[in-house]
Amino acid sequence: MSRIYNFSAGPAMLPVEVLQEAADEMLDYRGCGMSVMEMSHRSKVYETIIQEAQADLRTLLGIPDNYKVLFLQGGASTQFAMIPMNFMKNRKAGYVVTGQWAKKAFAEAKIFGEAVELASSADKTFSYIPDCSDLPITDDMDYVYICENNTIYGTKFKTLPNTKGKNLIADVSSCFLSEPIDVTKYAMLYAGAQKNVGPAGVTICIIREDLITEDVLPQTPTMLRYKIHADNGSMYNTPPAYAIYICGKVFKWLLKTGGLEKRKEVNEEKAKILYDFLDSSELFKGTVEPASRSLMNVPFVTGDSELDAKFIAESKAAGFENLKGHRTVGGMRASIYNAMPVEGVKALVEFMKKFEAENKHA
Amino acid sequence: MSRIYNFSAGPAMLPVEVLQEAADEMLDYRGCGMSVMEMSHRSKVYETIIQEAQADLRTLLGIPDNYKVLFLQGGASTQFAMIPMNFMKNRKAGYVVTGQWAKKAFAEAKIFGEAVELASSADKTFSYIPDCSDLPITDDMDYVYICENNTIYGTKFKTLPNTKGKNLIADVSSCFLSEPIDVTKYAMLYAGAQKNVGPAGVTICIIREDLITEDVLPQTPTMLRYKIHADNGSMYNTPPAYAIYICGKVFKWLLKTGGLEKRKEVNEEKAKILYDFLDSSELFKGTVEPASRSLMNVPFVTGDSELDAKFIAESKAAGFENLKGHRTVGGMRASIYNAMPVEGVKALVEFMKKFEAENKHA
Ligand SMILES: Cc1ncc(COP(=O)(O)O)c(C=O)c1O
Ligand SMILES: Cc1ncc(COP(=O)(O)O)c(C=O)c1O
Ligand SMILES: [Mg+2]
Ligand SMILES: [Mg+2]
Ligand SMILES: [Mg+2]
Ligand SMILES: [Mg+2]
Repeated sequence: MSRIYNFSAGPAMLPVEVLQEAADEMLDYRGCGMSVMEMSHRSKVYETIIQEAQADLRTLLGIPDNYKVLFLQGGASTQFAMIPMNFMKNRKAGYVVTGQWAKKAFAEAKIFGEAVELASSADKTFSYIPDCSDLPITDDMDYVYICENNTIYGTKFKTLPNTKGKNLIADVSSCFLSEPIDVTKYAMLYAGAQKNVGPAGVTICIIREDLITEDVLPQTPTMLRYKIHADNGSMYNTPPAYAIYICGKVFKWLLKTGGLEKRKEVNEEKAKILYDFLDSSELFKGTVEPASRSLMNVPFVTGDSELDAKFIAESKAAGFENLKGHRTVGGMRASIYNAMPVEGVKALVEFMKKFEAENKHA
Repeated sequence: MSRIYNFSAGPAMLPVEVLQEAADEMLDYRGCGMSVMEMSHRSKVYETIIQEAQADLRTLLGIPDNYKVLFLQGGASTQFAMIPMNFMKNRKAGYVVTGQWAKKAFAEAKIFGEAVELASSADKTFSYIPDCSDLPITDDMDYVYICENNTIYGTKFKTLPNTKGKNLIADVSSCFLSEPIDVTKYAMLYAGAQKNVGPAGVTICIIREDLITEDVLPQTPTMLRYKIHADNGSMYNTPPAYAIYICGKVFKWLLKTGGLEKRKEVNEEKAKILYDFLDSSELFKGTVEPASRSLMNVPFVTGDSELDAKFIAESKAAGFENLKGHRTVGGMRASIYNAMPVEGVKALVEFMKKFEAENKHA
């Protein structure tokens, strides 16, 4: 068995301890004679699994009691529709467009009402977070929407927008649990699990209770109503039980290794190693304005697409997987989520140095 | 490690070989250095997994080329909305109501148009399949909907309804891959994986191509359009990648063990052992009319709810899990899906005989 360094933007690396436990428990979960995949979701043993997952997540993030935690199916992409269907009471909302995922959420909202672009960084290929201190928010907007960490472009909001009293809804898929946050600043935050938390197939939604009502847009499917899931503890129908079980293990791993304060420290250390090298390198450079740099997704280029391709091929051969950048940005992207060890980033930088030395005068 | 006999209606037993392989591959899938949970769904190695899963399913069921196979999130319950949203062109469809799941699909369809009850077996607690040879189907109906195997009530359509030329849509969640079928008789069939096929979190939809169009109801979310998923090979967004991988292993297990002809033979053998005993027993009796009996879900009662409770407690202590019937039927239910070995059913009947001998004169 040899594990490689996987820089995938998602699905992505998971802690090896988590995978080892899952493997050990696969045929017989703690003496109950079956796999977690085989358990009735209505059984006592599964109820404990999902309730512990929720409780551990509440501890990690300090989620107040007036917020519901939901484990849903459909991916983060389904949230792009659920959010307007459940929250667009006035059929109007403001969107800050900072990349492809914000753009998709914005386009989806237009199916249901008036979605207003409050700010955008499209002018510079989404390489920065626009100033959000004085957005053109109007009184009839139901909420303000952001994608807090932009997986593809490698940007992150360092301060949340001034929403002028409006509810803030944030897609935190690619920065979830990477550092402590103040949940009370959000009306809702949500994350597809497959970046920082677990396998694809479960989306975690944290929603302030007063927002969860039966007053949704006409013809909203039952399964797209937050209230149905909130009232049934994410068990209105069969939940993605195994994916939730793995997320629960990741939550325990985070708690055991020092919680989100420690995680922030390690993530800052990892990111600094990579950004410092990019800033000092004569061959490689980061594509993001320093003030907007993500701790999780680090896009970089050589400026020469043939050399980029060579780097991707050679890095792959050397055991660094998935460094190819998104097709809309080109170049490279290293996603260094919670489960990527410091050694993985150090090894990557060593490899980049070697590549630079070999290709400086190419 | 001691595996027990798990009679859960879903999530349910999986073949032990499948679980063993999954455990073995958990940290390093075939030398690629990562778990399937960690793989980019856009990677070559994952593409092979999902494409093989689809190809094997096509072989197993003999799916014609003009049918698409989709792996979706949201559970079977999300299909209750997707079906009318995508197919109710005239806003009218006929539903045969044979249990709770058909009832839920019927109720959901009413959100979007006129759903007509074509037949029902509610008069006798859904203990039989109504005669569907001459249903009041009108020309303006977009489709006829059935739940082919009723998980809770233990009934199964032995012949498909005469749809008078209309498209037939079937929820086959609890009988999928239990025997060969003629796919061309259906316009669409679909199944939540967590009964006969894999872990919860993926729903398999098989849809005739000509039905998959952009002409859907207004305000249908992007993620609820079949065309989006069909055009993108179930990869419009991140698929429930690990769940699909496990389904793929189950497909290979089915192919290796003789395909669906063999499965039908074994399932008939298992069901006969249990039904023959129920018919000969003086204590236990099945709740379903013999002509409508499911091969997969077998509800039974003693006629005395205290004795039922005693049986459930004692069977559990003896290593037979999840025999409690659904709360709407009471009594017991043994779900004997593909992965339940013949020995499991034999052991259950032996236990029932012993219980009967001990409790005959109670
Ligand atoms: C920030 C962000 N939001 C949403 C999505 C879409 O998630 P999903 O594929 O689960 O629908 C992604 C996927 O990469 C993402 O990075
Ligand atoms: C026949 C049938 N249809 C639909 C469902 C609902 O499936 P899900 O929980 O995946 O939404 C079930 C669940 O038990 C079922 O048995
Ligand atoms: Mg982005
Ligand atoms: Mg540089
Ligand atoms: Mg039923
Ligand atoms: Mg009898």
